[in-house]
Amino acid sequence: MPQQPPLGFTFAGVACGIKKTGAADLALTVSDRPCTAAAVFTQNKFPAAPVLYDRALVAENAAGLRGVAINAGCANACTGEAGLADAAEMAALAEAALSLPPRSCAVMSTGVIGPRLPLDKLAAGVRAAAGQLSASGWDAASRAIMTTDTKPKVAFRQVGGARLFGMCKGAGMIHPNMATMLSAIVTDAAVAPDVLAEMLRRAVDVSFNCISVDGDMSTNDTVLLLANGAAGAPDLRGFGNHEGLAAFASALTSLCTDLAQQIVRDGEGATKFITVRVEGAASDADARGAAKAVANSPLVKTAFYGGDANWGRILAAVGYSGAMVEPTRAELWVAGGSRGEVTSPLQLVSGGQPLPYAEAAATAIFAEREITVTVNLGLDMGQAIMWTCDLSHEYVDINGHYRT
Amino acid sequence: MPQQPPLGFTFAGVACGIKKTGAADLALTVSDRPCTAAAVFTQNKFPAAPVLYDRALVAENAAGLRGVAINAGCANACTGEAGLADAAEMAALAEAALSLPPRSCAVMSTGVIGPRLPLDKLAAGVRAAAGQLSASGWDAASRAIMTTDTKPKVAFRQVGGARLFGMCKGAGMIHPNMATMLSAIVTDAAVAPDVLAEMLRRAVDVSFNCISVDGDMSTNDTVLLLANGAAGAPDLRGFGNHEGLAAFASALTSLCTDLAQQIVRDGEGATKFITVRVEGAASDADARGAAKAVANSPLVKTAFYGGDANWGRILAAVGYSGAMVEPTRAELWVAGGSRGEVTSPLQLVSGGQPLPYAEAAATAIFAEREITVTVNLGLDMGQAIMWTCDLSHEYVDINGHYRT
Repeated sequence: MPQQPPLGFTFAGVACGIKKTGAADLALTVSDRPCTAAAVFTQNKFPAAPVLYDRALVAENAAGLRGVAINAGCANACTGEAGLADAAEMAALAEAALSLPPRSCAVMSTGVIGPRLPLDKLAAGVRAAAGQLSASGWDAASRAIMTTDTKPKVAFRQVGGARLFGMCKGAGMIHPNMATMLSAIVTDAAVAPDVLAEMLRRAVDVSFNCISVDGDMSTNDTVLLLANGAAGAPDLRGFGNHEGLAAFASALTSLCTDLAQQIVRDGEGATKFITVRVEGAASDADARGAAKAVANSPLVKTAFYGGDANWGRILAAVGYSGAMVEPTRAELWVAGGSRGEVTSPLQLVSGGQPLPYAEAAATAIFAEREITVTVNLGLDMGQAIMWTCDLSHEYVDINGHYRT
Repeated sequence: MPQQPPLGFTFAGVACGIKKTGAADLALTVSDRPCTAAAVFTQNKFPAAPVLYDRALVAENAAGLRGVAINAGCANACTGEAGLADAAEMAALAEAALSLPPRSCAVMSTGVIGPRLPLDKLAAGVRAAAGQLSASGWDAASRAIMTTDTKPKVAFRQVGGARLFGMCKGAGMIHPNMATMLSAIVTDAAVAPDVLAEMLRRAVDVSFNCISVDGDMSTNDTVLLLANGAAGAPDLRGFGNHEGLAAFASALTSLCTDLAQQIVRDGEGATKFITVRVEGAASDADARGAAKAVANSPLVKTAFYGGDANWGRILAAVGYSGAMVEPTRAELWVAGGSRGEVTSPLQLVSGGQPLPYAEAAATAIFAEREITVTVNLGLDMGQAIMWTCDLSHEYVDINGHYRT
């Protein structure tokens, strides 16, 4: 995939001193013209201040956003009214540094919960970043939003003459103090706000909402999508361009899935990438619940870490997921690989009972770096997929011993 | 508490060769006269064969049970029709060895999911155990039902001239292959079956249902209560004895809570015992959900393991629990100790925002072996309590590397 960012967007990433390490911690993404905007936010009932700020901003100005400022190192969460004022001030500082109109810049924050944003550092940071904006600044920007991520996460797509670029950080509450999955996606397609919102909602539902590192939902999760129309085409501002809409939606979903899987692959302490497929469920919702229970089960995740073909845990997790189950109809397969490129599938359970499989074959599959688990409940057409990682010693290290 | 088992009950525990280590793996608990019986079972939709067998047995013969046979090392789960026949055969073997009428003996199993019960070993085992029954055999019995438990778990109570004894094993899916929380409770009080069922349901709801080691619900969880009336008093067969009913229910709840907390203290890899209290919730159900989310959060549990006063994770877990939350009303305290004996309570959050507490004081509390977390949502009178343990390197060791 050629790494060509959308036209009309520039990016920068700088260090402004929030991270104690001195690493880059402030990113700007700016459009040279107004963008339509859509966003999805955490469902956590302790939403961070930037979540509250952006939710109101996108509702108010869904056709006039110009960019987003993102800091790492301080989440601006559980900071009350003062935190909300800080988020507004951070946006205003960015707008001033970029000579943008008021209420045109979104903000995101990731980092420690509790402390106030260091506005003096942010003020200097946005000025410095504004001076470094460039079309090729996406790499620096993607590094400035990292916390415990071990590598930056970006994805590019092209569709019908338009380009999409997305960057993201950290799955779940990936860090003891960092509490965020953040993603900023930009495109030079021209898309109407309501169309953009619906496409983003659908894309997130089958991508970012299908991953789990530890099952913990953060206070700051945000996915923001800006479309500035600089490419001229595809023009998705009306509803006439059915093919164009479908193609763009498909590219957006592909990009979100790519980013989401990068998050899982770089999950805290992750050594394996596991695809959980549930098929034959009574409904898609049942399948989703069952897949999520398997993906979140500490027992399943430690078994994958240890390379232990312990299939009873998988069925047990399905059994407590709330999904409708007829035990005598359940089937279970495991296979190496993922994303349709599975190798040597092995059926372990049929009719709810274990088959006389070769233990060595199962152990060989569980020893792979990428594993696909398929549960068929044999009831109806409901299906779902989840991506997760294993639960390792390093996860406990990172989360037990980091802050002290 | 004097270790005096209920009159008319005898116990035995022997090794019959199911566990590869040669450790004791078969327990019998027998009454010299018919018992009223009550039981609660796992809600897992892949219930093990002994769960299905006992559910039908207790429904059919709630005033005529004589005992229970329990094996460790094989769960008889995911074994289909053949497994159900095996459970019935295990019961019949025990009834024959004990010269009991048909359909008078319950069965429980814990161990590997998938394999069939070794009936030949069980046949020899129940004969050997039948020859060793004694009133003081409760200790041997409680050891024979252990799997990864590091110590046997028993509790005694006396109430109004009657005695209660309970034994149990393993919280959650405590072992890679062992998948069970089992408890057998006996009393020499005389209790009507419907009264017994209601009292057990209530006692379990505030004890065994309030603990979490890893959030995984097993296929075999069973709590069985047998009342043989040998003490003569209290006579709880009618509804006239209100005081006696209340006192017995209180003793039963106390015994179940004692056993449940023993399970948490001996949870896989547990180094700390954590009490999670949620108060001021919109409803008890909300409080329960919030407490459960905190108790099951891998991030909260690793923070306790590391002794890290990372309170943001606690509020974040409450925030995604589904409970109604008004962020500006939330308060959070931590304290050392548990069960009302808390020491040096420290308020960390007020009005949803961090207080300027001394980090050293918080760290000192998080470093204790017993910690109580109290969240007050400031909404209404809903409250709940959960007991859990931390998530340690040893948990990953035990569950990742055991079977292979």
